[in-house]
Formats: sequence, structure tokens, C-alpha cells
Amino acid sequence: MSGFTNQKAAILQLQERTLTKVEPDPMSKKFYLELIPPSMLNNQADVDRLRDGLTSFVGQVTVPLALMSTLPGICRDGDWRLTVTLGRTAGGWLVIGVEPGNTTARHFGLAVDVGTTTVVVYLVDLRNGDILNVKADYNGQVAMGEDILTRISVARKQDGALELRKAVLETINRLISDLTTENEISKAEISACAFGANSTMVHLLLGLESNRICKPPYIPVVNNPGLLAAGEVGLEIMPLAPVYFLPGVGSYVGGDVIGGVLVSGMYKNPEIALFVDIGTNGEMILGNKDWLAACAGAAGPALEGGVVLSGMRAEPGAVEWVRLDPDTGQVQYRTVGGAKPRGICGSGLVDCLAEFLLAGIIDLAGKLKDGKDHYVVVPATETEHGMDIKVMQEDINNLLRTKGAVNAALEVLLDAVGYGAEDIKRFYAAGAFGQYLDLESAITIGLYPDLPRDSMVRLGNSSGEGARQVLMSDQLRQEAEKIATNITYFELIANDMFVQKFSSSRFLPHTNMDYYPTIKARLRERGIIT
Amino acid sequence: MSGFTNQKAAILQLQERTLTKVEPDPMSKKFYLELIPPSMLNNQADVDRLRDGLTSFVGQVTVPLALMSTLPGICRDGDWRLTVTLGRTAGGWLVIGVEPGNTTARHFGLAVDVGTTTVVVYLVDLRNGDILNVKADYNGQVAMGEDILTRISVARKQDGALELRKAVLETINRLISDLTTENEISKAEISACAFGANSTMVHLLLGLESNRICKPPYIPVVNNPGLLAAGEVGLEIMPLAPVYFLPGVGSYVGGDVIGGVLVSGMYKNPEIALFVDIGTNGEMILGNKDWLAACAGAAGPALEGGVVLSGMRAEPGAVEWVRLDPDTGQVQYRTVGGAKPRGICGSGLVDCLAEFLLAGIIDLAGKLKDGKDHYVVVPATETEHGMDIKVMQEDINNLLRTKGAVNAALEVLLDAVGYGAEDIKRFYAAGAFGQYLDLESAITIGLYPDLPRDSMVRLGNSSGEGARQVLMSDQLRQEAEKIATNITYFELIANDMFVQKFSSSRFLPHTNMDYYPTIKARLRERGIIT
Repeated sequence: MSGFTNQKAAILQLQERTLTKVEPDPMSKKFYLELIPPSMLNNQADVDRLRDGLTSFVGQVTVPLALMSTLPGICRDGDWRLTVTLGRTAGGWLVIGVEPGNTTARHFGLAVDVGTTTVVVYLVDLRNGDILNVKADYNGQVAMGEDILTRISVARKQDGALELRKAVLETINRLISDLTTENEISKAEISACAFGANSTMVHLLLGLESNRICKPPYIPVVNNPGLLAAGEVGLEIMPLAPVYFLPGVGSYVGGDVIGGVLVSGMYKNPEIALFVDIGTNGEMILGNKDWLAACAGAAGPALEGGVVLSGMRAEPGAVEWVRLDPDTGQVQYRTVGGAKPRGICGSGLVDCLAEFLLAGIIDLAGKLKDGKDHYVVVPATETEHGMDIKVMQEDINNLLRTKGAVNAALEVLLDAVGYGAEDIKRFYAAGAFGQYLDLESAITIGLYPDLPRDSMVRLGNSSGEGARQVLMSDQLRQEAEKIATNITYFELIANDMFVQKFSSSRFLPHTNMDYYPTIKARLRERGIIT
Repeated sequence: MSGFTNQKAAILQLQERTLTKVEPDPMSKKFYLELIPPSMLNNQADVDRLRDGLTSFVGQVTVPLALMSTLPGICRDGDWRLTVTLGRTAGGWLVIGVEPGNTTARHFGLAVDVGTTTVVVYLVDLRNGDILNVKADYNGQVAMGEDILTRISVARKQDGALELRKAVLETINRLISDLTTENEISKAEISACAFGANSTMVHLLLGLESNRICKPPYIPVVNNPGLLAAGEVGLEIMPLAPVYFLPGVGSYVGGDVIGGVLVSGMYKNPEIALFVDIGTNGEMILGNKDWLAACAGAAGPALEGGVVLSGMRAEPGAVEWVRLDPDTGQVQYRTVGGAKPRGICGSGLVDCLAEFLLAGIIDLAGKLKDGKDHYVVVPATETEHGMDIKVMQEDINNLLRTKGAVNAALEVLLDAVGYGAEDIKRFYAAGAFGQYLDLESAITIGLYPDLPRDSMVRLGNSSGEGARQVLMSDQLRQEAEKIATNITYFELIANDMFVQKFSSSRFLPHTNMDYYPTIKARLRERGIIT
């Protein structure tokens, strides 16, 4: 779990950078009321008195039966001064909590990013949107299967779906417990929660059948679950707290991606932008204020610690940054947490590939020269386990497949909407991988487009940040729904053009070198190409 | 229980007479959808597909998580032809049921009148508002206390409120069970329920504290509970079915009375009307389309079987109709169900008092002449138990107190709004007692005003009929809420004028005989007055 210490710091730093200030209009609201005590001349019933007291703030509200019975005592204990917590519903507001006195200074919500691998929970001050604390951990489902397809197949087994649901809820609830303990608040003070998650994670978390997600025609049970109650979801917070999941577009473009598009703002701008989130799966959104097109696919294992011999996740000891002196062959590297090297992670591998290309160690087709089948990045003498950390030809091939898929997918999208690569004016990289990846290396190997660097933005955990934004703003929540509705999804599987482009897009950085002018110049400078 | 056979017939007959045809816009709706099956080109999620299919009918709907999980199976089992049941919520519609195929021909709801003594459940066809069947029984709470004050004191004891709640729910659920069995429908096919009940019955049924209802300043927990779910209420029908309680005005003017005002239509007319519901308690509403004023109080035991020696409820064998030959003193009578006389019920007692007055057996102050302390209505030879059925002076006094309270309350209301008795142009009698009471006798003793007979209407079970109307029409539901909001309640307890009028209003038919011109004429005709 210690790997998350670093990650947490990075995420917090990121949040400070990309935190969009939104006019607070959160999913739950608190109002302090000083009601007129009843008398013979003013004999309104308690519930009706409360409802009338709220009318000037929010119009008509609904009071659930469970709260009606507690109201008389609270009104009288608090001498008719009380704080009401309201939760947003599809058609208005529901009273979800009543307390004596004025507790409006304590108003908390959660933004949760549920990734296939990692769960991040942000504790948010609903008065202003500030992030008070954050906790992250591996998704408890990882023990039952690393990738989405394995999870779905586990869910099909007897009690499998139940176990998976329990596992992820256990992770989330434990993180909530840690946050509330650390910040000295009660779980029952958390009155709203928004989620960013891919479609499979949403299904497994809600206990919905996931098996149709992965077989044609790839139909999820739900793309937009709407506003649910914490109790029915299984979150250990205020039972009636509204819980919202960022809406998805389909089985492979989920709410996590919609959150990213929301955070990027690309849906509001006139220039065409490209949004890419590459993790275990890859999603890509192309578009502007007038249209949005999406596609998605499995990204392959290369980037998530799936390197054949020396691969590992971005945990302490993972080589995450590599530079190679083209003249001496001297390797410089940095590890996560500065620990002794134990393996290499995705960003380290991308660095390697870029450096190999620039140093002439591999050719433009990604083949190690001189008949070698591997390259030693860190010699055994420097590693923790006393074994070489090496990149195999197979690792390079895997990464090239990922890069090829990304290129091919982009070409399919561009072709579908009638634009060319030269029309893309902005680029957004989402997700943890997008955050740690060296931008120059990613461009060098052709994974990212070769755009002016100041038009390329790392969004960090934009799934979590998207969740925070919809938690804080109903207008942004509606914008997220509009984004999901407006996106046209293009299926890559069984798409002839994709297959064709895929096989022709494995050259470094790109089959058409003119798309990569800055890399072309560097390669020419180093004499790799003429 | 057999007493209800008669009552049932009477209620049904009544319903045929007063059933208002309303444009169906019921609390639950059913829609048959033929959805386009998903494909690679149309890969919307199941829930979103369903929601979109409903949009053209009702706009945005909410789908609860519990139904999301059953939807994929139902869609595919029904080949994408399915029937959706929607329940009204404060802010829109909630999907409360989904079935394969077209089941729109089966669409059922309940209108329930929960009286302190009696519960009546109407099975309603929500397609057109027709009453398909009706069942009635004593409120199971009767065993724990006959009147409201006793019930409230029971509710204060350990587990008392719980027991009372269980008792009335048991009665209602048993009647539902009987109805559904008899009409060959499943309980889960009942998708909406509306209640007419007094405030105490609403509190005891919902498990809310009732003890403040009966002590100053008489504050209920709730007057308008809004739309609840059957599951939280404890009704054994579709768990998410919307359940509505006709709103009340205060502790002593409940939803049953608002239902009556709704059914009467007095709130829409320019003429001033008087609405009276006398049972164990009495409620009175005076007003027209511009204003409505209400008061209420305990009616005393006289009318509900509380006659000292020979009193009984309106069950078989109860003397319910009495005529007395002024010359011969010969008594004619009729019993409920034509059975051998066992006692006398409220309507019989009112008949006796009127006939005693017209025959000169009592004086204008209600005193039996010639120093007698009772009058034998049915001699022992004709009764089932071989004992005289007699009316005691004390019974007369009790009834005079009830009548006096009604007169005094009316005067307080008239005075408060600045009108006189002569301004009342229409009269509505609600409740079972209003239904069975002989109109002429009630006028003769001054319980009802002396108006042209065709402007006097018996509303029957207007609490149940009011419930049926709001079950069937959202417009009427909103009108009921407006009625409740617009009524001004006048507290009689500790009202000096009431106390003063009460002691001066015990003459027959009225202290001011000019208010009763037809009775004055009859008394004069018979030589009782000059």
C-alpha cells in the first residue's frame, strides 16, 4: 500500500493545478432554519412547518417517512433552530438529514474515482469545493482478476458478482473510514458522493449484470444510472445521500472518460481537440463544441506493468524515467520513491523506446539492431534483487502494438468525421499514466501527436476531478450528461479500416513522418534518418 | 363482521350515486413499449433505452437500482416489448415495475378510508376510476381502545405505537388480500394507494408520535405526508407504489374531512355551504370558493352506540328508524338487517328525540314530561334479549349536548367570518352517520340547519371517495392540497364564545326558533308551541 503515498502527493499536487473553481451548487445542501415555535395561533404540523421553512430556499421538498418520526424531538431539542440537509433527486430535493442547531459549517461530500486497478476517494468541502483529504488504494477486486475481461468472467460464476461488489465496496468504505477518522468527521456527515468509473466498474459496483458489456453488440445495463441513494448503493455514509455516477457512452467509453472531457473543457471550444486516456484500456475522444467522436479498445499490457521479465507497476523501485547518452550508451534512470531498482514501469518503458530510437539502438520499425533480443537498462549490480532489469524485443513489440492501435484508432476517427491529423489543435492526456509519462518520449514514439507543447495538457486524475466537479455543480452535472448524449461512438472491433491502419501504423514515430516534424528534425539531427 | 355486509351494499350504492367522473390521470401509470432491439449500430444501454422510450410519454423518469438489475432479463424475455409502471413522485415519475408483454389492461389501485372505528378499502380500476370491489371491517385498533384519546394514550406506552400500527396495517392488508383473491389479481399488481383518514389515524398508521395531537397547542407531526412508498408505509402491494394521504389542516381536521370538502365541490362554488361530519368526533367546514373556515371537537358518545342502557352500533338488530303516532303513542321501528331488536343506534336515537318532541313527550328543553326518567321504545316482548329497549333522560341529555356543541360551533364560525345562519345556502352531511341519519329528524332536533331539502346533500363515505378522486386525478390531488392550505382553523377549546353559546343552545330545535321555520310550523301545527 505504501506505493500510494507518492501517488497521493502527486494527485494532490495535480489537483491544485487543475482544480476548476465552480460556483458551489452541490448535490447536497445544508440550510440553517430558525422556525417560529408552534402556538395555538400557529398550529402547523412539524413536517409542514419544516417544509414551509425551506420553500424560500429551494421550493417544494420531500420528507421521507423515516425522518418524519425523528423530527418532533429534534425541533424541540434544538428549540426550533435546526439544520436541514437536502439531497438532490431527479425532480427536486429530498430531506436527507435534520440536526438541532447550526451545523452548516460542516458539509462534506466525496468524489470517487474507481479504476480497474486503483480507487481514489477525495473528501470534499461542499461549501467551496476544496479537497480536504484524499486516500487511494488498489481496487479490492484486483485479487480476483487484474483486467476487466477476467472480472466479467468471474462475475458470471456463482456469487462472483456478489463477491466483486463486496470487494470494491469494502475498498471504498475503508478509504471513507480512513478519511473520516483522519479528518475527525462522522461518516453520517457525508451527504453526497459522485463517481467517475468505467462502465464495467459501475456495473460491478452496482451489482448489475456485466456479461453483455464484452460481447456483441456490447450493451451495458445502464450508461447513466442517475441519482441513487447511498443506502441502495452500499456506501457507508448518510443513507439517503445522493450518489451520482458520471454517465458513460457505452461499454467501453465510461463515466471516467466523460469526466475527463468535462474537465478538459474541449466540448466548449471551437478548436478540434484530442483526448486520450491510456491505461489497461485506451479511450480516445476527438471533437470540439459542435461534435464529439469516441472510440476505445484494449491497450494491451505494455503500459501497466505487463513488461515480460522486468515489468512492474509504478511502485517504489520501479524505473520510471530513463535517459541514454547516444554517444557513450550511458544510462541515467530514476525510480519511484528513489528506491533501489526492482523493475520497470510503463513510463520507463516509453522512455526506453524513445531513447533507443534516438540512440539508434532500434530501427524505425522498432527492431533491436545487431540481432539482439534485449537491452539491459539497469545492470544486476545496481538492482535490489541482483538481476538485470532488461527490455526484451517482445516488450518493444507490445508497446508498438499499443502505439499502433492508438494511431489506427485516431485515423479511423479522423476519417469518420472528415478531418485530418493536421486539424487537431489541442491534446489532453488523462489518467495516472498520462500524468507520469514523459511528454517528449510519448511524442517521440508516436503515441502522442506532435503538437506545440503548450497546447498539450496533462489532466491527471480527470475521472476523480470530473466527479468532484459534478459533485459541486449541477450545471456541470448537466453538461456531463449532455457530453455523454452528444458523443458518437465508433466501434473499432470488426472495423476493416482499423485493422488495415493498425498493421500499417507500427513505424516509429509514424508511417507518415510529416505528422511528427519535431521528431523528424531530432532524428535527422542525430543522423538516424536523412 | 356480518354487519359490514349491509354497510358494504350501502357504500356501493352510494358510490354509484356520487361517483364523480374524472379525467384519468392516476397516481400510477402503465405504458406499453415496443423498444428497438439493440445492435452494433444502436448500442444504447438497457436502462437508458427504457428511459428514452418513456420520454415521449412523461419526460424524464427515475429508475431505482433494484429494477435496473431485473431489466436486462425482462427486455430480452419479452423480446423488447414490455409494460412499464410509473409511480408519481413529488418531482416527476419513478419506474416502479417492468413486465414483459402488454399488461396495460390490468391496472389497479386502492382508495382507503381509515376511520377510528371502520376501515374501508376500495379496489379501483386505474384505467377509468371504476370501483371493482370494496371490503370493510372494524379497525383492528378498536380492541386496544374505542376512541382516539384512548388510542393516543395506548401509543404512549412501551410498544403501544408499534402495536397500534401493526393492528391497523393488519386490517388493511387483510382487506387487500381479500379483495385481490376475490378479483383474481396479485397484490403486486396494485400500483397506487390513496388514504382518507383523520390526523390521529394517519399518525398511528405511519408510526409517528401522536401524543402532541391531544394537548395544547395541538401540533401533529405532519399534516401533509406527501407521496410515500408502499414499502415504507407497510402496505403489502407493489413495494414502490406511491401512497398518498389526503392532507389535513390540524390535529382535529384531517384528510378525511378535506376529502369530503373535495367531494362536495363547495370550495368551487360562490354560495356559502356548510359541511358537517359527525361521528365519534365532529368536524365542520363553512365556506365557499373564496374562503373556508373549520372547527372540530369531540361529538360525545350519543351517536356512536354510546346510549346508556340500550345503545349499540349500527349492527343487525339495532333500531335505526323510529316513528311515533302522536295520537296513539304507537311506536313503529325498523332494525338494521331486519333482525329482532337488540338495542338502539345513533340514527334511531335522533329519530326518537325528534318524535318525542313532535309528540309532546319531551319539552323544548328536552326534558321528559310527567317526571319520567325514560321512555320504552321497544317492549321486552319484541326484543331478542327479552328486555325493554329504552331511551333514558341521560341519553337525551347526551344527544342535546352533541347538538348544542354543533350549534355553538357553527355560531362561532359564522361570527368569525362575519356571516349569519341565513347566509348558508347548501349543506353537506358526510360519513356513515350522515348517510343513515333521517334528514327530517336531524333538522327537527336542530342538529342540521333547516334549509330547502334539495340543497341538502348526503356525501356518504366522502373520505373514501375523496381518496378515490385523488388516486385518479393529479389535478384533484392538487386541489385537495389547496383546500387544506386555504382552510382557516378555529380552535373551540378555551374559546369563551363557544362555551357561552354552548350553554345557551340546548333548546329544541334552536334557541332562536326563527332559524327553523319548517320545524316551527310543524310544532305549531301540532300545538306544541303557539
